[in-house]
Amino acid sequence: MKQLELRLEARPRGFHLVTDEIVRALPLKAVPAGLLHLQLLHTSASLTLNENCDPTVRGDFSTFFDRLVPDGTPYFRHDYEGDDDMPAHIKSSLLGTSLMLPVSRGRLALGQWQGIYLGEHRDQGGSRRILATLTQ
Amino acid sequence: MKQLELRLEARPRGFHLVTDEIVRALPLKAVPAGLLHLQLLHTSASLTLNENCDPTVRGDFSTFFDRLVPDGTPYFRHDYEGDDDMPAHIKSSLLGTSLMLPVSRGRLALGQWQGIYLGEHRDQGGSRRILATLTQ
Amino acid sequence: MKQLELRLEARPRGFHLVTDEIVRALPLKAVPAGLLHLQLLHTSASLTLNENCDPTVRGDFSTFFDRLVPDGTPYFRHDYEGDDDMPAHIKSSLLGTSLMLPVSRGRLALGQWQGIYLGEHRDQGGSRRILATLTQ
Repeated sequence: MKQLELRLEARPRGFHLVTDEIVRALPLKAVPAGLLHLQLLHTSASLTLNENCDPTVRGDFSTFFDRLVPDGTPYFRHDYEGDDDMPAHIKSSLLGTSLMLPVSRGRLALGQWQGIYLGEHRDQGGSRRILATLTQ
Repeated sequence: MKQLELRLEARPRGFHLVTDEIVRALPLKAVPAGLLHLQLLHTSASLTLNENCDPTVRGDFSTFFDRLVPDGTPYFRHDYEGDDDMPAHIKSSLLGTSLMLPVSRGRLALGQWQGIYLGEHRDQGGSRRILATLTQ
Repeated sequence: MKQLELRLEARPRGFHLVTDEIVRALPLKAVPAGLLHLQLLHTSASLTLNENCDPTVRGDFSTFFDRLVPDGTPYFRHDYEGDDDMPAHIKSSLLGTSLMLPVSRGRLALGQWQGIYLGEHRDQGGSRRILATLTQ
């Protein structure tokens, strides 16, 4: 079992395809069959799998989740880091902060249209850390 | 670590109990203690655990999620595969496309009322592929 | 691979920080690098990672999810265990019933602000069982 920490570059609020950035950082080539666990070490961002081709999907994700949990929702009490603070925590739990992904013959074994999305739910989230654990 | 691909038969849009179909396809009996990872290889369907007995639960899931993410939501831009396209992507990420399940003494070690739901979020989703990884 | 069952004490409806109760029950100290899988054996409660410090975050979670899936929603057909029954099933699948967590040098390797929430979605959920599987 190998563990290493990755650091994703800072991105603006929204959903971002980060498959390539993650794969490049990991020694997957030596793994004939295994599982990759990715744990985002934050509570205001998320990781999820979704469509890896059309950028309008990521735009529609942003619009949907920003409407589902609006900034500045008046009944939120946890607001001292700003209007985007509590909505970011809720989006983080709705989508999740970890992924477990199959690895086969040295590559992520995902469906043809599946890619890894980083959901950046803060206006100024900064760089994000992931602890990766690789088992085979 | 064993990996094999399953193919779930095509089902209509909605939530379906697929525990038996999955268990039959896997060599769980030889596993005294382990974990089973199921990765759906699609972005418009989902896997989740929920109540395995009363079919009205699955019906209520359909109604709830169809109201939360309505077909033909006017602000969605990704719509060229139809009104059910973008809602299916969002439901897929809200519910998730993978499960990690404990195995004990050759059987799935779930709670008495837990079963595996396939969420089929497309009107014509067709057969669905799962990559299963079994560790012990 | 070690498996053991934990029993969380009964808690009122809402979101509760249970990191310490879980860690105390598990032999993590002997694990240099591994993964901990927690499977809640119920369909009306949930496990998620979120902010481990300010209790208003857990309160805002309760308010948000109780509004998203209101008790006594009139179109729900599965209601014979009460108005909180079907909403609890949906919250359980929105948030999930399992976590896979990295373990490093004998401790959970989470972010500084991450803690384990039990989402108790029933008015009278009682004690909750978790099957823990520890791999290294």
